[in-house]
Amino acid sequence: MIQFKILKKSKKSSARLGILKTPHGEVETPALVGVATQASVKTLTSEEAQRTKTQMLIMNTFHLHLKPGEKLVKKHGGLHKFMNWNRPIMTDSGGFQVFSLGFGKDLGMSKILRKTSNTSIEKGQQPKLLKITDEGVLFTSYIDGRKIFLGPKESIKIQEALGADIMFAFDECPPPNAAREYVEHSLARTHVWARMCLKARKSKQALYGIVQGGSFEDLRRKSAEYIGSLPFDGFGIGGEMGVDKAWMFKMLKGTTDLLSEGKPRHLLGNGYPEDMPGIVRGGIDTFDCVVPTHHARHGVAFTSVGRLDMKKTKFLGDKKPLDPRCECEVCEHYSRGYITHLLRAKEVTPLRLLTFHNLFYFHSLMEALRKEIKKGKI
Amino acid sequence: MIQFKILKKSKKSSARLGILKTPHGEVETPALVGVATQASVKTLTSEEAQRTKTQMLIMNTFHLHLKPGEKLVKKHGGLHKFMNWNRPIMTDSGGFQVFSLGFGKDLGMSKILRKTSNTSIEKGQQPKLLKITDEGVLFTSYIDGRKIFLGPKESIKIQEALGADIMFAFDECPPPNAAREYVEHSLARTHVWARMCLKARKSKQALYGIVQGGSFEDLRRKSAEYIGSLPFDGFGIGGEMGVDKAWMFKMLKGTTDLLSEGKPRHLLGNGYPEDMPGIVRGGIDTFDCVVPTHHARHGVAFTSVGRLDMKKTKFLGDKKPLDPRCECEVCEHYSRGYITHLLRAKEVTPLRLLTFHNLFYFHSLMEALRKEIKKGKI
Repeated sequence: MIQFKILKKSKKSSARLGILKTPHGEVETPALVGVATQASVKTLTSEEAQRTKTQMLIMNTFHLHLKPGEKLVKKHGGLHKFMNWNRPIMTDSGGFQVFSLGFGKDLGMSKILRKTSNTSIEKGQQPKLLKITDEGVLFTSYIDGRKIFLGPKESIKIQEALGADIMFAFDECPPPNAAREYVEHSLARTHVWARMCLKARKSKQALYGIVQGGSFEDLRRKSAEYIGSLPFDGFGIGGEMGVDKAWMFKMLKGTTDLLSEGKPRHLLGNGYPEDMPGIVRGGIDTFDCVVPTHHARHGVAFTSVGRLDMKKTKFLGDKKPLDPRCECEVCEHYSRGYITHLLRAKEVTPLRLLTFHNLFYFHSLMEALRKEIKKGKI
Repeated sequence: MIQFKILKKSKKSSARLGILKTPHGEVETPALVGVATQASVKTLTSEEAQRTKTQMLIMNTFHLHLKPGEKLVKKHGGLHKFMNWNRPIMTDSGGFQVFSLGFGKDLGMSKILRKTSNTSIEKGQQPKLLKITDEGVLFTSYIDGRKIFLGPKESIKIQEALGADIMFAFDECPPPNAAREYVEHSLARTHVWARMCLKARKSKQALYGIVQGGSFEDLRRKSAEYIGSLPFDGFGIGGEMGVDKAWMFKMLKGTTDLLSEGKPRHLLGNGYPEDMPGIVRGGIDTFDCVVPTHHARHGVAFTSVGRLDMKKTKFLGDKKPLDPRCECEVCEHYSRGYITHLLRAKEVTPLRLLTFHNLFYFHSLMEALRKEIKKGKI
């Protein structure tokens, strides 16, 4: 089980400084949670992920169910032992894949390159590759086309075998362009599933409920009130947020205001550097985001002077580190010129160097935000 | 400049134990030299390469000339600073590319999957993509089709700008299926180029001459005597050796017997674990080989129980490390099962884990061979 201790609350916003205690150590909050979808922070080893100041990782129930399967992970002693990561782990429930492998795929929306769509998703409509019913979701495996059924019970059972410190309830993440009636129906289902997840849990692992409600403020409130009333150990705030960040920050505050103050809140799948202050002000304690690692694998460095596309030849002669103000081991040892050379020479090493730096940079930003809350500046 | 000190000579073979002193530290010989073609040990950082017990790296003059260009490397302070590698570096001359981008390409022969060919290469014959003349070789860039001329002067000039501790003379590496007349003609040219390289050198970097001679024993002897008579700081033994290892070991002994005992000898591009004792007995002090790193990127681990194809599902449930007798950090932290999962999930991290382990394993074998020479057992 987990314990959450609030050390300081902001007087100017919903921000709070805290400590999340788990069976695998503590997390200083607010914190970015590193993404390790398939039990690996892409391109890094677990020891390296630690050195980037990553405190907690989130892994993917759906993907790990397909490969290598939760039984195998359990045989290896659970996720922590399997990947030699002795710090806290979260597993999401597979609910996001209901969107990403469903309507998200149909409409060409991805987690990274956000697109809006004018196509409205109406009540009763089904995505091409999966079928959503009141019992759960019938997926089609992208590996071998095999049908996979995931409902609240199945998700919890898989997550218990995986052995994370914190699990998430199985939900439906509705598409951002869903019509009100679609979201109302989906939300009712997600709420039923939330209770089923609580009932299905047999382990001592923590379980977070997920607040949904699409882009409708009243439905978000309704969901926060309902999910908040259930005996979860913490709360996730889900949904494909789209591109309207101002709306998201407002929604976050509105949602967290309705949730029990003493329980931790996790924002699912968001966290560009420029969004961090807004997320923190919205009362979020942890959030996960693929941005630092994904962009690294595309040659992009996040720095104190903005994003740098390191594939550009202009950096070849540059002897400075990625970010002269960064204290990470990559910035200590390697120049922009060398990293650009390696990227242009199609080597693997620069993807690692950029992943390491970006994660370190993101975690450093969060460290700074924690200091600001402590000083009462946020 | 370099200094070479022989600590012990075997009474049973041509093997010797030595110390090669360079401006960037010492190499205990006999030693495997790690391959860092484009100024990067593929998938690793320079600090990691050090932790694999790699003492010296060899980089490629031709590839670095194309990308990022020797002027840029020089601007960064030379190869050592550019890649943050403070140990010794060798640069080969581009002579092997005369084969690999020439007849080697035409005949589908690669450095790894050795194939023999029944097509004989006759005197006067030219490969498709390059033109070999007495002055040098006209290459066609694989990047943009631009023509690149490399002769002895050009190669030395590039290598001096790159700044390695040890350079190699520009030579022609003839194809293994070359007719005697072809090799005679090629060898005469390589010998002329050797003198030109010595004359072209302006720096204090060490320069090794390269012994060629194809598969003809008398030509190999002739080359050893001629190259051995020139004031080189050490000697390379080149040539695409093909699959006949017994022939290679015999040739090595015959060649090194003719070379000045006090100078170091480097075997170019050979070194499977099973070949190491024969190479060492043949009087070789250093050799480079892509096998540990190349095979790693194809999912193969070298272990004390042989080569393991880690892509196989049978390893998924295996909790043992890659090699239970290995002391490397990968074997300390990760199981075969985890590495197999990551390979099957198409992650990048396992390629690194295997590269690290394989290099450490190869260097450990060489460490053991050095001990055997010391004990007089080889």
